[in-house]
Formats: sequence, C-alpha cells, structure tokens
Amino acid sequence: MTKAVQTWNASATAAQLSRSFRETRRISEAICQPLAAEDCVVQSMPDVSPARWHLAHTTWFFETFILRAALADYESFDPAYEVLFNSYYNSVGEQFPRDRRGLLSRPTVAEVLEYRRAVDERLLAWLAAVDEPDLARFRDVLVLGLNHEQQHQELMLTDIKHVLSCNPLFPTYFEADSPLSAAPEALRWYAFDEGLYEIGHAEPDAFAYDNELPRHKSFVADFELSDRLITCGEYLRFIEDGGYAQPRWWLAAGWSTVREQDWRAPLYWQLRDDRWCHFTLGGLRPVDWNEPVCHVSFYEADAYARWADARLATEVEWEIAAESVDVTGQFFDASLGADGRLSQHQTIHPRGLDAAGDETTLRQMFGSLWQWTGSQYLGYPGYQAAADAIGEYNGKFMSNQFVLRGGSVATSANHMRRSYRNFFPPEARWQFSGIRLAR
Amino acid sequence: MTKAVQTWNASATAAQLSRSFRETRRISEAICQPLAAEDCVVQSMPDVSPARWHLAHTTWFFETFILRAALADYESFDPAYEVLFNSYYNSVGEQFPRDRRGLLSRPTVAEVLEYRRAVDERLLAWLAAVDEPDLARFRDVLVLGLNHEQQHQELMLTDIKHVLSCNPLFPTYFEADSPLSAAPEALRWYAFDEGLYEIGHAEPDAFAYDNELPRHKSFVADFELSDRLITCGEYLRFIEDGGYAQPRWWLAAGWSTVREQDWRAPLYWQLRDDRWCHFTLGGLRPVDWNEPVCHVSFYEADAYARWADARLATEVEWEIAAESVDVTGQFFDASLGADGRLSQHQTIHPRGLDAAGDETTLRQMFGSLWQWTGSQYLGYPGYQAAADAIGEYNGKFMSNQFVLRGGSVATSANHMRRSYRNFFPPEARWQFSGIRLAR
Amino acid sequence: MTKAVQTWNASATAAQLSRSFRETRRISEAICQPLAAEDCVVQSMPDVSPARWHLAHTTWFFETFILRAALADYESFDPAYEVLFNSYYNSVGEQFPRDRRGLLSRPTVAEVLEYRRAVDERLLAWLAAVDEPDLARFRDVLVLGLNHEQQHQELMLTDIKHVLSCNPLFPTYFEADSPLSAAPEALRWYAFDEGLYEIGHAEPDAFAYDNELPRHKSFVADFELSDRLITCGEYLRFIEDGGYAQPRWWLAAGWSTVREQDWRAPLYWQLRDDRWCHFTLGGLRPVDWNEPVCHVSFYEADAYARWADARLATEVEWEIAAESVDVTGQFFDASLGADGRLSQHQTIHPRGLDAAGDETTLRQMFGSLWQWTGSQYLGYPGYQAAADAIGEYNGKFMSNQFVLRGGSVATSANHMRRSYRNFFPPEARWQFSGIRLAR
Amino acid sequence: MTKAVQTWNASATAAQLSRSFRETRRISEAICQPLAAEDCVVQSMPDVSPARWHLAHTTWFFETFILRAALADYESFDPAYEVLFNSYYNSVGEQFPRDRRGLLSRPTVAEVLEYRRAVDERLLAWLAAVDEPDLARFRDVLVLGLNHEQQHQELMLTDIKHVLSCNPLFPTYFEADSPLSAAPEALRWYAFDEGLYEIGHAEPDAFAYDNELPRHKSFVADFELSDRLITCGEYLRFIEDGGYAQPRWWLAAGWSTVREQDWRAPLYWQLRDDRWCHFTLGGLRPVDWNEPVCHVSFYEADAYARWADARLATEVEWEIAAESVDVTGQFFDASLGADGRLSQHQTIHPRGLDAAGDETTLRQMFGSLWQWTGSQYLGYPGYQAAADAIGEYNGKFMSNQFVLRGGSVATSANHMRRSYRNFFPPEARWQFSGIRLAR
Repeated sequence: MTKAVQTWNASATAAQLSRSFRETRRISEAICQPLAAEDCVVQSMPDVSPARWHLAHTTWFFETFILRAALADYESFDPAYEVLFNSYYNSVGEQFPRDRRGLLSRPTVAEVLEYRRAVDERLLAWLAAVDEPDLARFRDVLVLGLNHEQQHQELMLTDIKHVLSCNPLFPTYFEADSPLSAAPEALRWYAFDEGLYEIGHAEPDAFAYDNELPRHKSFVADFELSDRLITCGEYLRFIEDGGYAQPRWWLAAGWSTVREQDWRAPLYWQLRDDRWCHFTLGGLRPVDWNEPVCHVSFYEADAYARWADARLATEVEWEIAAESVDVTGQFFDASLGADGRLSQHQTIHPRGLDAAGDETTLRQMFGSLWQWTGSQYLGYPGYQAAADAIGEYNGKFMSNQFVLRGGSVATSANHMRRSYRNFFPPEARWQFSGIRLAR
Repeated sequence: MTKAVQTWNASATAAQLSRSFRETRRISEAICQPLAAEDCVVQSMPDVSPARWHLAHTTWFFETFILRAALADYESFDPAYEVLFNSYYNSVGEQFPRDRRGLLSRPTVAEVLEYRRAVDERLLAWLAAVDEPDLARFRDVLVLGLNHEQQHQELMLTDIKHVLSCNPLFPTYFEADSPLSAAPEALRWYAFDEGLYEIGHAEPDAFAYDNELPRHKSFVADFELSDRLITCGEYLRFIEDGGYAQPRWWLAAGWSTVREQDWRAPLYWQLRDDRWCHFTLGGLRPVDWNEPVCHVSFYEADAYARWADARLATEVEWEIAAESVDVTGQFFDASLGADGRLSQHQTIHPRGLDAAGDETTLRQMFGSLWQWTGSQYLGYPGYQAAADAIGEYNGKFMSNQFVLRGGSVATSANHMRRSYRNFFPPEARWQFSGIRLAR
Repeated sequence: MTKAVQTWNASATAAQLSRSFRETRRISEAICQPLAAEDCVVQSMPDVSPARWHLAHTTWFFETFILRAALADYESFDPAYEVLFNSYYNSVGEQFPRDRRGLLSRPTVAEVLEYRRAVDERLLAWLAAVDEPDLARFRDVLVLGLNHEQQHQELMLTDIKHVLSCNPLFPTYFEADSPLSAAPEALRWYAFDEGLYEIGHAEPDAFAYDNELPRHKSFVADFELSDRLITCGEYLRFIEDGGYAQPRWWLAAGWSTVREQDWRAPLYWQLRDDRWCHFTLGGLRPVDWNEPVCHVSFYEADAYARWADARLATEVEWEIAAESVDVTGQFFDASLGADGRLSQHQTIHPRGLDAAGDETTLRQMFGSLWQWTGSQYLGYPGYQAAADAIGEYNGKFMSNQFVLRGGSVATSANHMRRSYRNFFPPEARWQFSGIRLAR
Repeated sequence: MTKAVQTWNASATAAQLSRSFRETRRISEAICQPLAAEDCVVQSMPDVSPARWHLAHTTWFFETFILRAALADYESFDPAYEVLFNSYYNSVGEQFPRDRRGLLSRPTVAEVLEYRRAVDERLLAWLAAVDEPDLARFRDVLVLGLNHEQQHQELMLTDIKHVLSCNPLFPTYFEADSPLSAAPEALRWYAFDEGLYEIGHAEPDAFAYDNELPRHKSFVADFELSDRLITCGEYLRFIEDGGYAQPRWWLAAGWSTVREQDWRAPLYWQLRDDRWCHFTLGGLRPVDWNEPVCHVSFYEADAYARWADARLATEVEWEIAAESVDVTGQFFDASLGADGRLSQHQTIHPRGLDAAGDETTLRQMFGSLWQWTGSQYLGYPGYQAAADAIGEYNGKFMSNQFVLRGGSVATSANHMRRSYRNFFPPEARWQFSGIRLAR
C-alpha cells in the first residue's frame, strides 16, 4: 500500500492531505473487517473501548475540530454524538462516562459506518474546495487528526485482543502466517559516552506531538544499551526463578499489584496441560520462546531488569541511542496486504530476530514492541501545551505514567519518529510492550 | 396465536408437547426480532443478561436435562457451552461468572440461533419417536423447561429495557399503539373474613413449581384488599409530598438504598424540562398518570403503603383474594400478533383500567404488573426441593427476597396460576412490578 | 446480685425504677471494667461499635427521651453529643455515620463516664421528685431505656470479643473458670401437634417490645423440636464431611458468602498445629467438643440443618414449644459476682449440658445461645410501630433479617421472655448464636 | 535543647551516639505527651498510623537491626512484635497489614512505653560497652535508625492531626501561641543561569539517605524561582476564581481526584458561617491569610502554578537554588521548649514571613512547608539501593510519587539537608506541604 509519510509536514497540499485522509480512514475500517458486530460492543475493562467507539470517536474528532470549526453552516450529524464520542476534551463539553462505553449498543456498527461516510464526504468536499488561507488554519489539526486516528488504530487492535481474550472460546481475530523464530544470540551491549546531548523533535517542518518539544539539552553519563529485546525464553527463566514470588525484585507498588492481581506471567499467558500458551490475535497458541516477550507492565520490565542485574534505559538514553539506527522494523504495515486489507502473510505479533540479522547495530529499536523506559512521563523543560481543546491532547496526562519508545507491530510505520513518546501507567499490560535492558 | 395452556399437565402427549415446544421456542426468537445484533451483547448490570445469553441458556436447559440425559449417544453441540450457558446449577458443573456475561461477544447471535436450531431439531426428533415410558421419565422436566423458557422471555423483555435505558439515545425496542388511559375512580376495598384457609397449588395433574407446594392451611385475620393497582398519578402525590426525602416512611435498608442510589422516582422516570417522562419499550414518553405505576422496588411499594396509611398484602391474603377472580388480564400474549410476532396493536406496557370495567370485583389481579407482597420468600411448611439439579431451581433462593404475585404484561397467560410465586430482592426495580394496597 | 425483673411492669414505682436504673447502669460499667482505654476505641467492622460509644449512646437515650423531654430547663451535656451518639433515630436528628465511629478518640473513656454520671444524677434526681402523672408519661420510655441498655450490654460483650479477636496477640477479656463439658446423649425429639396456636406477648402489664405484639393466632402443622443445641463435635462432622465445600447444602446467598469470605468453620475457629481452637472472651483455647457450637450465621445453621436431614424451627413453632419450659438457663447474670462485677467462677461462654440434666424436657431453650429460626423478621399481623422516634426502635428493620430466639450467655435473665424476638442478617456471626433443629 | 546534628557523621563516638539516641527517643515521647491513650489507637485512613504504632515501630527498628543483629543472646521483647511492628521490610519477614493497624488496641500505650524502655536500656548498655570494630559495623544503621525515628516524629504529628480532624469535636492537640502574620510583599523572582550543575549529597562523612546519591551532573536551562511560599490569601484567589471547578488547570488524574473526593479547598479548610477556617494542631481557627498555604496535594500545587502562569520547580532547580541559602527556618525544634517538651511559645504551624525579613535572598526554603517539585521520584543516575533489608528503605517506592524539598514545621532542624528528598503520591495532602513557584 502507498505510504502517506510525506504528508505529515507543514506544506502538504490539500490533495496530499485528501489522499492521506482516505488511506488512514480506510485502514481503521480494514481493522474492523474481521469482526462480527457483536465484537464491536464489548468493553472488557475501563481502559478498553469498544471498536465501534473508536470508529466513531475518530470521526467525532474531524467533525468537531474541522467541520464544526471551518463550516459556518455545519449541522451535527447527531447532536447526541457530541457527548457520546467526546473522549476527554473538557473544553469541548460534556463526555459520556468512559467506563460505561460498553453499555451502549447504539449506534450500531452500520450506523457508525454511516456516520463515518457522512463526515468523510463532507471533509473531502471541503478539502477539494479549500483555499490556502483556510487550509493553513486547519492543516495542523487535520494532520493531528490523522495521527490521532493512527493511535486509535493501534488501540483498536490491543482492545479487541483484550476483549477476545476474556472469552473462554478464545476466538481468533485474524489467522495469518506465524512461523517460529530462530534462537537469538546472547545479549550484546552497545556503549554510549557521557556528554551533553540534544533530544526532542528536531524538524520544524514535520509533524510531532507537543510533548516531543522543545528540543533541549540533557547531560547523560556513560551507559550501555542491549542490542535487542528480551525473549520469552529469557523471561521464562525469571518466572522459573520465582520472579513473581519474591518481593525483592519489585517496586513496592509493583509487588502490591502482583499480589492483588495474582500475576504469575505476562498478560495472556496461561498454562494448558503444563505448557505455556498465550492468546494472540491469531488465537491461543504455544509460546514461541525465541520471540520477544510481550504484554508486560512497567513493573514487570523493571523487576526483570533488576533480576538481570541491569536496568531500563531512560528515555533520554534511548533517544540518543536511536540516532544510530533507521526508523524501520516490524510495523503494522507489514500486516496489511497490497489491497489495504489484513494479509495472510504476516500475523500481528512480534517476531524474533532474523537469524541473519545485522550484528553491528541495535536491533528491534522500532516496530516489534514498545519499550518501557525508566522515565516517568513529564513535560520537557519549556514544554507548552497547545492552546484550547487540542492542548488537552497530551499535557494533562503527565503524572503516574512511564514513557515507552519505539512503536510496535500495531503501529503504522509513518506514525513513528525517534522522538516519539508513548506513555502508560506502570501497571498497564494490554499494549504491545516489551523489555530492552540498559546498564 | 394458538394457546398452549392445555399441555402443562401430566398427561400431555408427545404431539401436544411438540406443539408447545415449537410455540414457546418461537416466541423467544420473536422477542429478539426487533433487536440489532449489538443489542444482544450488553449486560447493563449484574442482574441483567444479554439477550443472546437468554437464547442460549434456555437451549442449554433442554440440551442438558433432556438430550444429554435421554440420548446415550448425544454429543454436546459445543462442550464449552456447558459452562458458558449454565446459569447456576452447581450440580451440573462449573459456571461462567454471571457478572461477566457482557464480556462475551461470541457465540454471535447467528451462532446461537444455529445452536437453538440444532437442539430443537434433535429434541423434536426425539419427541416424534419417544415411547411412553421414556416420555414419562422426561415429561416433567420438559414441561419445566418450557416454563423456564417463558420466565426467560419475561427477563429478555425486562433486561433489554434496562439495556436500552442506559443509552442517552433512548432507542425504541418496538413501537406500538399506546393510547392514554382514563382516570380510575377512587380505591375501593374488598373485605375478607378471618379464618383458616388453604393456599398452594391444588391440581395434582397440572404443572406448578415446587415452591407452590405443598398446599397447606394458614390462619388469616380479617383484611381488606384494594380493588386495583396504584396509578402513576397517585404515586406522584407521594413524590410531591417528599416521599423520597423523609426517612419516616421507609424501612432502614430501604432508606439506605434511597440515599446511596439517589432514588427520587420509580426506575426509568426522569424530568425533561420539568415534565416527568419515563423510558418504555416504546421509547421515552411522558408519564400517563392514569396507568399503574411500574418499576418500583419493594422498598418503594412498602413506603408508599405506609404513607397511604395502608400496607402490602401478605402472599396468603393475596392468594385467598385471588380465588374470587379469573386468571385473566393484560398478559404478554396481547402484544403478540396472530402471526406470533410482536404486534403494532398493543405495546408491552401496563394500561390503565377500562372506563367501563366491572366494578364488583377485584381488578388487575393478573397480568399488568407483578404485585409486591409483604411476605419474604420462604418454603411452605413441608416444602421439599426436587432432587438433583432441578432441586436448585427455586429452593436455594429463599433468603432476602420478597414474593410478588399475579404476573405482568411481560408474562405469558398460560404461564400464570393463582398459586404462582415470583420473588425478587427488595431493591429490585427492573421487573414490571407495581403496588396493590391492603389494610 | 439483686434481680430487677419485677420492675419491668406498668405499675413500677419511682423507687423501683430508680433501683433498676442504678443496677442496669452499673452493669454496663462493670462490663467495661476489664478493658484498657485503648480497647474502648476500636471499631473492627461496621457492625461493631467501640465500647465507649455504647456507654455514651445508652446515656444519650435517657438524656434525649427523658431529660430533654421531661425537663423544660434541661441543657444538653454537650450539644455535639446529640449527633455523635444518636444511633439511627432520624426523627431525633442527624447522626454521625455509623461506620466511622472508630475514627473518634474523643470523648475519652473518662469523659464518657463523666457524661454518664451527670445524666444519671439528673435522672435519679428527677425520679426522686417526680409525681405520678409525670412518671406515667415517661415510665414506658424509661423501662424501654433500661431494656435498651441491656441490649447494648450484650453488644458490648460481642463487640469487644470481635475487636480483641482481630489482634494476633489474642488478648483475654476476662479469665474465668471454664471446666470441660460432659458428652451429651444423642438428640431426642419432642413432638407438637398440628393446631391453631396463639403467640406473641400476653401480659399487658409487663414490658415487651412492640415487635412482640399483637398476640395473634397462627396455624401450625405437626412438628418436632430437638431437645438441645447442636454441639461443636456434631458440627465438626459437618465440617469434616465437606460441609463448607459443597454448594448443595447452602442457600445461594449463603454459598456466595462462604466463597467470598472464605468461611471454613464458625467465626473465631482456627486451626493451630492441626488442632481446632477458638477465640473466647477468656482467650484463645481448644474447642470443647461437648459445648454448643457458637458464632454460626443463619446460613451455616440452615446448611447444617439440611445436611442433618432436618430444618430450623419457625419462630411460631419455637414459641409454642417454649411454653413448656421455664425461662431459665445460662444467662449473663451467672457471670456476675455478688458484688455486681465479673466473677471468676463463670466464664461468658456457653457450657455443655449438665450430665445429670432433666431428660424429660427441652433444654437450653433460654440462655446459652440465641437460636436461629427459619423465619424472616416481619411484623406480626396487625403490628403497629410506636409513634415518633421510639417507633424507629424495631419496625424499620423488617427486611433481610432472620429471627433468633431464647437469649444467650450475654443476655440478662430479666431481659428475656418467651415472646422475645431478636433479629440479625443471615450472614451475621459475631453474636452468640447457635443451632437447634426441627423437623 | 541541645542539638544532635554533629553526630550524624561517620566518626561519631559511642558517647555521642548515646546522647543523640537519648534525645531522639525522648522527643518521640514528648510528641505523644499531650495525647490521651484513646488518641493513640485510631487509624483515620490507610496512610495514617496510630501514635502507639509509631512509638513501637521505631523501637522495632533498633531491636531488629541492632539488638538482634549485634547481640548473639538477644531474645525478642515479644516475638509477636516482630510481625506487628514491621512496616514494610519483606526481607525481615511477615508484616501485619498496614491498613489494619487501627484494629489493634494492644499493646496499650503503657505496654509500648515499656517496650521502648526495655529496648532503650539494652541498646544504651550495648553502646556503653561496645568496642570500635563492633560500633563500626552498626554505626550506619544506628544513625539511620535515629533519622528514621525523626521521620516518624513528623508522621506522628501529621497523623494525629488527621485523626483529630475527623472528630466533629475538633479536639486540640496542643494549644500554643500563634500570632497573626504580616502581609508579605508581592512575589519576587530570583534568576539562575543555564548550565551544568552538580546535585546530590556531597559530604562523604555526613549522613544521607541512599536516594540522595550519587552526586551527579545535570544540565539545567535558565530558570527563575520565587522568593517565598504562596500564602493562603493568594490561594484563596485561585479558589474564588473557580480553580476547583475548571478542569483546564488540572492534570487529568488531578481533576478526577477533585471530582471523586469533592475537593473545594486545601485539606482541613472548611466554611463556618461563610468564613474559612482550618483545623490545626492548635484546634479549629480562622485562616490567617498571610501565612503560607498548607496541606495541598501535588495536584493542587500544580494546578495553582498553571493558573498563576508559572510552574513548579524541578528538584534539580530547587537544589541548585538552595545552595544560595542557609539550612535554617521554622523547624520543629522551635516548638520544643528548653525542657524538651512542647512549648507554649510556638505552635506547630507555618508562620508568615517576618515583616523585617531579608529581601535579598530566597526565604522559607527550609522549614515551614515541604515544597512540591514537578519531579517524579526516581533514582539518580547510578543509584544503588543498599543491600539487604535496609535497601528497602527508599528504592522500592520509586513510582507514582513526586519529590518534595525543604522540610517543614514538623521536621527537626538537624534532620534537614539541601540534598534531602522527600516523596509522596500526588494526591497526598496530610503532610505539611505547600507551594513555591518557578518559571
């Protein structure tokens, strides 16, 4: 499929934006394509939203921040949707409570798709006719809306995975090829020198979230970063060494969580007849010991690192190291066929390293799995949230979350940057999150 | 539609049972017919089950207690369903947790209907070929299964009403005629004499639940029963007199509930622009003051009665009084057309009294609304629960529930008897429950 | 010590009432005498109140319903106490939340005792000077206040037992003689004939709570009642037969409670080195298998009865049977020495039967342990709660509670009557409650 | 009173340590001196511990880490105390659950004081006889134990304040002089230059917690720090401007907390007859608008800063700025008389600035109030937790907490250092915490 990466910049034309818009919107629907209508209703925990809600909320974003703002005569598709599909924008108005999204059976999937169609048509019509001054007013928020939809595409995948995992029938989301990985070599360490570095988004012309700014200097001592992600087999040794039974490896809050939630392995792992299996988007299957361990919380990543006599990298260290590699890896695009639909040829699950990989460089830095850093999510020195509603996008979440870096198998390649900061609470496990060690 | 009432007896033939079975099963599906697949997934509170679950569980009942018991070579439709659709029969085996039914999106509606079809075919084939000794072994449980499905038909209606009510879009389940009622005359009181009465199920040949047995003597003092149900208009006076603001009318547990749940009116009532509306299966509409007040808890019924200087009848008093009237009224059948589908001509909501009603008798004793009694639900003297799994049907719920009598607009006419005992916890409001006074 | 029983009647003189008042008030303080100030603060669960609170609340009762009502110029001891020590009388005014009583460290024990002294002095002065018309106005509420304080004396004992049981040091409340019991003979059954009986309080001149009225007729079928309470040894067989592991013996709500609270034995039982011990007011000690089993909930009593192929008596049956025996037994008085203080010679714990007991009659009907009946707590036919605040005493608790009969080792002898109705929720275990079977 | 500050170093003699030990231990008991035994029992929220528990736990620390480790023949004062008074040291053994400390009425205050006496005697005897090699083994943990007890002294004050505040009688802890403050001048800002700074504990010979190490370099951009703390009057303007009603000033998690807990003002503030009062250790009294605002959470400090168009300092900025001032201020010592007891002359509450203060320097940097920084609590680069149990002291709390700096009116002067890092969750309000702005 055609990549849209070139349009994330400040000089994108209306035609380029139209093309990106069409592609991005199509991918959301492609993700829902394997689902039954019933699958699109369930909210399996407060963090999870029903697939229908994602489809509608991303539409609400364009309707609210572009159509209603740009078109004087615009009438809401349905005024009730303004509340139902507002996620957390207090400045826009009231919100239907997040943890009750699973109580709504209407609008149905079909009605939501109709909502999408109506908003898409109107927006594309506007783009087809817009003049440059008007486009200039809305270009940023349109590009933000496209990135926003890409984030929800990732959430659709992780949320539906969680929903299906609660069902003892273990329904398969999408069956695709998933060959076993080869065993990787032992961890290698790459050394970086003490010094004053700059991190943060550097290209003024290209899109970035406000939390990647401003680019700023930071002093970092000598450090080493491991060449690849920790595998399931390596993590199994932590489990078998009593990792989940000994408080000594854990932060106090992590240990409380282990006991309260009775964690004994990563999310989705379960013993079936004494054999470790895990639930994947391709169904329940035996764990492949050579693939990177996935669906671990920050607490688990941090405990594993302590057990392994190492630590997690800070996000500054990670970003410094990332300068040395290309932004390539196992992204979601690999799971989409040429026709823009899910492909039989690539399951949405992190693979192990290719046997014949490049051994002179850091690997799996991008794609594969989000990598927990040891950095709590705060604003960079001089950080300013955007004005108005859009300012609620990132800044207000800056407490009790840890930063993850690098993207995952559920992230689109053109969504990723070296300066990209993802963040989740330290107990979150339903994202595609893994472990890379530093020391 | 043809009534099946004659088959609830001990000499029903296989052919009669087949006909009843077909009709009863068809009605369940007719009830789901106005629903979207999405509507059949949501569990809006732990007491509510998704419509799909009701369709499957009633099928599981026949599969478990007849097909698996009667057919040596029977293979489960799906072994996982044995757990998924077991409601509470500990003797049968494990159960999927009740409060997590809304987490399941599979089996889909279509798959559940296929399950129904497979079990129905098999059961009807068995009935077509069964000899009398075999039929004799299973006749009781088959009839129980049909009554069980009728109970779930009522729950499907009350559950879907609750589900749809949680949606600020207030979706209509089924739009049907609903003319305004005429104002009733003031309450009249019918007197009954002190004496030793017999209550309980009396016809050995006819079906009854075990909790209606044994028929037994009970001494009752003089009492009076009001001729009709309390109307919304009468209940409004209680509200406007500060009924929900004064602890003096309430049981202590009721008053706690009022405050914790912030009750200010019956369930489904809401003020829209200073006008009382309520959510019905026909959508949100203004309250008709002459129709009987509906969706009140035992606590509210009891508080209203105290405010009105009266009390609720005991179930013994109610059953004694019911001897004087026919078992007729506004049952669910009236909402089914000749074709067995929901009819435009009768909404599923309690009507007020006909202006020209019979004024020499108790009215609205059957159909319309379940009537809270002041009797806690306990076994009759000499009560014996049935042996094995079927024994779990009723007996184990005999604590912290109050008895309701008479059936409702959601009950099938041939499901009702004078001795019929329904029971719900005193705070339950989502059933079609109303108020009749005694003194 | 001198018994006060004769003063519970309608013609008690002021002098008799003074004497009863002094004695009753003294006993409350005698109960607190073995406690440290620290023991009088803790609220170990919402149902439990700190001992200081009981001392103050019973005082508040006399202050509110007599001093403030009878004395025009009475000034509150402390206006804040009107709220702090109001338990649940909505008509009197606001209440400090029940479940937060353990947050209060003030007033201290010494301050509460001073409060008691001030109210006692004032009340005794009033009694010394009162004329008959005034006494007539307050005699009933004064006698109610004395009975009320006796109820709280029992609660002080059961509450402090619960408080101390939460402490792994297992502090002893009061060490007293506690010889082992002899093994009782097998259960014997006493038969009662079907018929129309009268139950309820019968002596118009003697005190009774409103819930014991009116005396009324009730029809009862043939029944049998066992001669004595179930022993710990008999109950152990239920435990060892998997009683707590099999849902078949339990009401559904009981079974949920067993699993949620992980019940495996009566409250206060614990295995120490494979030996069953239980916590008593005399400290932790091995279970005496011949003493009656204690601190079981209604759910456990009901499950045991079902396991033993019997049932619990209804309260009507119990009261009919109680007509045949004297109101004597192991009451709290036996634990008080001649000096009105706790005595070394009698622990506050139910004893087994004397080896040489009377074998021609029901035993342990009074004192020893409250006996769960199978009757839910409701008003008798024609029940009228008293007017005003006093009307809140009993009537408003008539839901979700079961009736217990007979009194316990923590009840004063002159507090008990055949018609006495105690009531607790079916899961309550911290009262001195045991099991008698019927069939 | 004599200051013990000189003994916090690596060459302290046994005699010096004895003197510090005696003084520190005596202060803990002086803090409890105004309390009734009843006050020492209550746990008003899970974060709060009863005063008795603090007295015992600090003793347990010395018993466990010195007496049991140093004395081969040492027998526990009471083996049950090893569990009861272990706070969170998993490596030492089991712990009585933290949130159940308020359920324990024993050991009583008197018994705890006896425990203290026994351990003190034994420890002082050991110190009197110890040779240098033995002292060398335990000097660090002894000094740690003294600092640990000082931390608990502060917690005793904040915990008892919270306990007493829950009582509608608003008991006074200790009445002392508390003159009104003068109005401060407008905020002044002190500028600091961009550069590479070193922070962290710098004196190898002096005591510090492990979390203050290692000293390390950090790059900081230009910043300004305000000269003093925000006053109650300044904070009132935030309240009156709708600060607690507008989500725009708040982090998302902060806003959720505001709504869930219905925050409308700092902890302990309440409107009495339209006048703002607050509960202090000297009782309930009108807010003095010129004193620094106190008992605000990180969320409130952060929201206030945003409203004031400023931000909180990072802990690095704070420590850099602190280099310019002496470690002096309104510490707890000022509230202790010459006799080591609480003094009438100085209430334990932050004062406003002296009218005639030094205007050329930062003020209120130390003592007065802990100052929330915008830095989440993490280990410094190269941080290593100590080995064994002592390693659990700090490191395991490094998630979801924010750093506070500077000490408070409840901190001992000799407990404070420029590098001192305190930390609490962002919603915590019961510490003496206030606001200083940066920009």
